Amino acid sequence: MTTGGERFTAPVVLTCGAGFPVLRDGVVDVGPDGRIAHVGPRADAPELDGPVHALPGLLMPGMVNTHCHTPMLSLRGMGGDLPLMSWLQEVMWPAEARFTEEDVRIGMTAGAVELLRTGCTTSVEMYFVADAVIEAVLTAGSRVLLTPGIIAAPGWDRLGTWEEMRDGVSARIDAGGLRSGPHERVELGYGPHSAYTLPPEALTTTAEAARERGALLHVHVAESRQEDLAQREEFGSVPAQLEAVGALGGRVLAAHSVQVSAEDIGLYRRHGVAVAHCPGSNAKLAAGLAPVGDLRRAGVRIGLGTDGPASGDDLDLWHQARLAALFARVREDDAAALTAADVLLMATRDGAEAIDRADIGVLEPGRWADLVHVDLDDQAFVDPDDDAQLLSNLVWAGGSRLVRDVWVAGERVIDDGEPVKVDAERARADLRAVAARLHT
Amino acid sequence: MTTGGERFTAPVVLTCGAGFPVLRDGVVDVGPDGRIAHVGPRADAPELDGPVHALPGLLMPGMVNTHCHTPMLSLRGMGGDLPLMSWLQEVMWPAEARFTEEDVRIGMTAGAVELLRTGCTTSVEMYFVADAVIEAVLTAGSRVLLTPGIIAAPGWDRLGTWEEMRDGVSARIDAGGLRSGPHERVELGYGPHSAYTLPPEALTTTAEAARERGALLHVHVAESRQEDLAQREEFGSVPAQLEAVGALGGRVLAAHSVQVSAEDIGLYRRHGVAVAHCPGSNAKLAAGLAPVGDLRRAGVRIGLGTDGPASGDDLDLWHQARLAALFARVREDDAAALTAADVLLMATRDGAEAIDRADIGVLEPGRWADLVHVDLDDQAFVDPDDDAQLLSNLVWAGGSRLVRDVWVAGERVIDDGEPVKVDAERARADLRAVAARLHT
Ligand SMILES: [Zn+2]
Ligand SMILES: [Zn+2]
Repeated sequence: MTTGGERFTAPVVLTCGAGFPVLRDGVVDVGPDGRIAHVGPRADAPELDGPVHALPGLLMPGMVNTHCHTPMLSLRGMGGDLPLMSWLQEVMWPAEARFTEEDVRIGMTAGAVELLRTGCTTSVEMYFVADAVIEAVLTAGSRVLLTPGIIAAPGWDRLGTWEEMRDGVSARIDAGGLRSGPHERVELGYGPHSAYTLPPEALTTTAEAARERGALLHVHVAESRQEDLAQREEFGSVPAQLEAVGALGGRVLAAHSVQVSAEDIGLYRRHGVAVAHCPGSNAKLAAGLAPVGDLRRAGVRIGLGTDGPASGDDLDLWHQARLAALFARVREDDAAALTAADVLLMATRDGAEAIDRADIGVLEPGRWADLVHVDLDDQAFVDPDDDAQLLSNLVWAGGSRLVRDVWVAGERVIDDGEPVKVDAERARADLRAVAARLHT
Repeated sequence: MTTGGERFTAPVVLTCGAGFPVLRDGVVDVGPDGRIAHVGPRADAPELDGPVHALPGLLMPGMVNTHCHTPMLSLRGMGGDLPLMSWLQEVMWPAEARFTEEDVRIGMTAGAVELLRTGCTTSVEMYFVADAVIEAVLTAGSRVLLTPGIIAAPGWDRLGTWEEMRDGVSARIDAGGLRSGPHERVELGYGPHSAYTLPPEALTTTAEAARERGALLHVHVAESRQEDLAQREEFGSVPAQLEAVGALGGRVLAAHSVQVSAEDIGLYRRHGVAVAHCPGSNAKLAAGLAPVGDLRRAGVRIGLGTDGPASGDDLDLWHQARLAALFARVREDDAAALTAADVLLMATRDGAEAIDRADIGVLEPGRWADLVHVDLDDQAFVDPDDDAQLLSNLVWAGGSRLVRDVWVAGERVIDDGEPVKVDAERARADLRAVAARLHT
């Protein structure tokens, strides 16, 4: 008998765990510690001494966005028709150069609310000004794996040298630990921007610092055909360079990985490199389609990412799930290359695996109770009693518009579509003021 | 001075007309005949003797879905991981064989409501049982260009021979005219399914019948690499066959046109063939990516289509607009291949042009007042006073979830997201009953 916890019942529970069953008339029990105590059919559930929340819809784990720069929300839509390097150098970086710490806090607060509203409870953020990002996440009640940016590119020296950026992360981890905050809402890692914005020794030493601390190394790799010409000239490819300079071997998350060869993929497999797949951003910036089929066949872990809101505008992982399926089917010339179930798992369990997190992404005992309640009372579902059609309709006709309620570690953060812990109107007004200022 | 009409004012009006201006503080006047009487800035508007509706958001023309089979809504999501021919022959056609006339009416009614809710006021429907489709459209208050299906494939002879199907359309047009219904809500055309499901003489004679009557010929062309091997063997390509059998020259709308060569595109240009581009369906069924850049450079008219709800599940043209931009950027290796403005026009004005309709798709005097009111009070818009960012945010971060109100010929059919003329709950319950029956 679970005591002191809460029970959630729902006509459909998707655990996103082994075998991916569609559990009918299920329960999820949450202990007082914010972790899941039990998941199963209601008929077999243990007795419970605590409140029962009878949800009318579908319960699933919170999604994991494995690549994002959410604080840039005020730049959403800027330079939306430019290729990667022009867009970075001519639009994004000059605009970001005018960001204040308060702008970062405002962007992350409004963005965390958006992420939560779509059912995404954890985002992997590569961004600067860590205090502002962490404050915003704790305010909104979401979860973050924050890898503060480390970069040596024109204009960015205002934030210090890459050594200072690297050492800043190390000092932060050494002082406060890898995970912190209520219910371990914050994890820290290292965010070396890329091989084309950093000298090789930055990659080497940052990777060493990350390995020493068991921290994630989160880096942009092989996004388009243009940005890394110098690295490819010298090393053959960026993955080859990362291996050559000793940057692989620990927890490494390679964002994008669009322009990777069979050799690169073999290298990812050997070193256990995971990929944050961002199909929408890659297509919008004309970077290309990542070889998701080849990566999966090689056993490389793949999560989904929206990328930052300037190229992944709506921060909606449901859209990325659909895009992942569509692009993989085209690239593989196979209508079953990625199924609805495959991409639902990619957005949840696989995302958690890609960042080595066994405590989120699946509804099973011991993991955090990061829960999403999806409305089933919608015309998207034409035959909800049929398992296959339910999943298909959820992915292809449903999506974020059906997310009603969200909990992180058992704490409700979205209630009937509205944020519980943030004044949404205020957050949006603040965001507009930042955007208007950056535009003038 | 306009008399007897109504005025709509809005802080932003997108006419989707020449030059595609973002009109600030605009008005759209609608005459008592349901047609637009005036569009322009409020400061220059004529005096009006009639009610004024002050809308708080953005006003734009109703979208035009140029390829759909909406009555199949009860099959949404079925066989969602199969390639085109298996999906058609093993899942769709057997299920459709069990459709009653009432099932068609129910599917089209619920589907017309969905289309209207997303801001799509006109759909080009290839489907059977014309009476049921027309009844549903007139009930919901949308607009249709109905091209009843003409097919000679296994199982379909229960509906008659292809000659009977063709002659049925001719008789219908000869009796009731090409356009009919209140505010010309219904236009009729011919829907020969494809070159691989019909003998050549069916294509020849159906095209003749269409040309004689000035009607649209709406046909599936070059969707995947597999379905038309016999035609390609004999004629080189399906477009070449259509030309050889005399099927081109009139109003021809070639749905899909994914696997088309430079020669095919030249032939489209010479004969004025238009394309219904369905990027989502084409990717989902692994048919491929249509050469939209080549088609546009050749001056071929292109509208957007969702395709039927079994492969274009959510019937959301906003999603197809995004997908069109994403796919074109990848295929063209150019982040400006299709801009936000380009795809907004594709969903409105270009769609109307693709079906030779000068009476819809643009807000300008003389056209039907098919209007869509989009909420601007949303975090999607971070800097709505900037024209470029407004359009970018509308397409990339906004979309159908922001559609609030819709009018067809000045008559309100969606009011704050809910259908005015249909009992949405009843329509959905009917749809579920059909889906459940087809599944057993
Ligand atoms: Zn990025
Ligand atoms: Zn079709």
